[in-house]
Amino acid sequence: MDKNILVLPGDGIGPEIMEAGLLVLDKIASTFNHQFTIDKGLIGGHAIDEENDPLPNETLLKAKNSDAVLLGAVGGPKWDNNPSHLRPERGLLAIRKGLDLYANLRPVKGFKQLLDASPLKPDVVGGSDLLIVRELTGGLYFGRPSERRDNDQTVVDTLSYTRKEMKRIIVKGFESAQLRNKKLTSVDKANVLESSKMWREIVEAEKVNFPDVTVEHVLVDACAMKLITAPTSFDVIVTENMFGDILSDEASVLTGSLGMLPSASLAENGVGLYEPAHGSAPDIANQNIANPMAMILSIAMMLRYSFAMNDEAHAIETAVEKVIDQGYHTGDLKVKHGTKLSTSDMAEMIVQAI
Amino acid sequence: MDKNILVLPGDGIGPEIMEAGLLVLDKIASTFNHQFTIDKGLIGGHAIDEENDPLPNETLLKAKNSDAVLLGAVGGPKWDNNPSHLRPERGLLAIRKGLDLYANLRPVKGFKQLLDASPLKPDVVGGSDLLIVRELTGGLYFGRPSERRDNDQTVVDTLSYTRKEMKRIIVKGFESAQLRNKKLTSVDKANVLESSKMWREIVEAEKVNFPDVTVEHVLVDACAMKLITAPTSFDVIVTENMFGDILSDEASVLTGSLGMLPSASLAENGVGLYEPAHGSAPDIANQNIANPMAMILSIAMMLRYSFAMNDEAHAIETAVEKVIDQGYHTGDLKVKHGTKLSTSDMAEMIVQAI
Ligand SMILES: CC(C)[C@H](C(=O)O)[C@@H](O)C(=O)O
Ligand SMILES: CC(C)[C@H](C(=O)O)[C@@H](O)C(=O)O
Repeated sequence: MDKNILVLPGDGIGPEIMEAGLLVLDKIASTFNHQFTIDKGLIGGHAIDEENDPLPNETLLKAKNSDAVLLGAVGGPKWDNNPSHLRPERGLLAIRKGLDLYANLRPVKGFKQLLDASPLKPDVVGGSDLLIVRELTGGLYFGRPSERRDNDQTVVDTLSYTRKEMKRIIVKGFESAQLRNKKLTSVDKANVLESSKMWREIVEAEKVNFPDVTVEHVLVDACAMKLITAPTSFDVIVTENMFGDILSDEASVLTGSLGMLPSASLAENGVGLYEPAHGSAPDIANQNIANPMAMILSIAMMLRYSFAMNDEAHAIETAVEKVIDQGYHTGDLKVKHGTKLSTSDMAEMIVQAI
Repeated sequence: MDKNILVLPGDGIGPEIMEAGLLVLDKIASTFNHQFTIDKGLIGGHAIDEENDPLPNETLLKAKNSDAVLLGAVGGPKWDNNPSHLRPERGLLAIRKGLDLYANLRPVKGFKQLLDASPLKPDVVGGSDLLIVRELTGGLYFGRPSERRDNDQTVVDTLSYTRKEMKRIIVKGFESAQLRNKKLTSVDKANVLESSKMWREIVEAEKVNFPDVTVEHVLVDACAMKLITAPTSFDVIVTENMFGDILSDEASVLTGSLGMLPSASLAENGVGLYEPAHGSAPDIANQNIANPMAMILSIAMMLRYSFAMNDEAHAIETAVEKVIDQGYHTGDLKVKHGTKLSTSDMAEMIVQAI
């Protein structure tokens, strides 16, 4: 197959993990006889430096005309004091909205060999394997009004959703559970928020269409506890944007493998965007020590979700597991034994394992 | 001293832990020669059953005329399907607003003897001792509009704050840090929310008044991670209502001692309310097995914050630690050794230790 991929390396460790990821993608192309045509674009801090815009129009246009987008990471101290419209993360928010990437999928899986690095006890966290399905284009992130009032004495942000926006992400949650262990945890704050009440109604209405999925409602505060006390009790968690932001970051550190976690941001029919769950880690940039595995596993998600190349995705995932099983790791993974590799050596090792 | 205390036992295990707590309060009265006059009132499920109102006017009036309020816990499955204005937690929200309890203080402390029960590794969580200062009467919880629109096709909730509301809780955060280890972590989502930008400005403006306090800004998603990976790095965390709800529940399970955690909800000059951080645990109600220590430690907080009885508060806290040190515990604490006590025996043991 021929596919056009827009690559957005971004800031910090973004470019080096992207380079590592593209080595793996090359190997997939030659092994499975595909043609991946790569175009590059600017986003985040680099885009601000060069175009004075965290998401130049050209990047968004290129993204819309591609078959999928790969993103490294954005942000860094250099831009921390910029006015908000000139901050790197605005680029991220703008591309989410611009491509209508309403569904953010964040799998969290414990790698047995990495449990050493988890802050949790092995008997609590061992075997965790959950997927957070976060709404990504609504809620407090984009609701209007979002402004100062009364001569700067009052401020409001708005948590707003349409029924349609809630329904599509909730359905995505059910569908995701159907493809996994058939358990859906819907997270809301229905004892306080009107929006959560509507959310819960929609979940209740949808569940008749997914009779094989078991549904539970958990309040966001209770979920924040349960992720720590019983992480293995979850399969798929579906929730709105802000709750999903907090809970997915919380979940990402449970297994000690943040540097291993990929993510996918999907539109209803359009282009998907794939990026590691971790950030741009400017403190370790340009040292060839960053962990490229979250980027590489994000490429596997792209192959599966955007190109329906399941064997290819699986080949990458198996190669990563094999390399980890052999005790190879990068410096971010605080494991006790094994061999520490550089970014490029790790990519090479995974290429060889495919 | 003479003090009038309004006691609201509430639902589930509320009445039995309150009874246990009052035994300890009696002992303080006789030991230190105080007179505590106890009145009782209805709130939550019981108030709905008897008065069809989760916070009867009489209760709020009594609260306003008391020197402090003690609350057990509210809620239970019996009222779970009630319409929202007839749900037990509405009583809680109404008394917070009615007494203007803007500052919720939730200390989280690891008891060395209970670390067995923590889901975290002892080297990660050992020595944690933090205080969450949560805004309790603003934000998404009370902002208007909070309603359906467009013929039930859209829904909005409103995150609104006045500068004054933000300032008073931020100042409370600084003051709390000053009384402890002089480190304040201000939590917001300033890269997305206008309200968080105002919040951060106020923190920056206030810090000149507290030169001895070190301040850091942490985004709410990053804070949800750091609570797990580095719980000992925190001293005081100050944040708005919804973030505080999520983070304080998350923090409450870190040390394995949820049943030990008290809370205080304070007004600017008025009456304070004191309650355990845990809920009404209807599944174990009326069995005399609930852990009364969070209630008892909430009474200590009342003595300290509302009555400035520091020695008395300290006497309770020392007694609890002593009893725990001797290996006594209740069934909720999943420790490996020691002696398990009933609710009333635990209260008795603490009374004797005073
Ligand atoms: C950078 C920020 C705006 C973003 C978010 O809050 O969505 C990030 O935290 C994430 O989760 O992708
Ligand atoms: C019961 C509920 C409304 C309440 C809240 O969200 O504030 C509770 O979770 C708490 O933290 O005291």
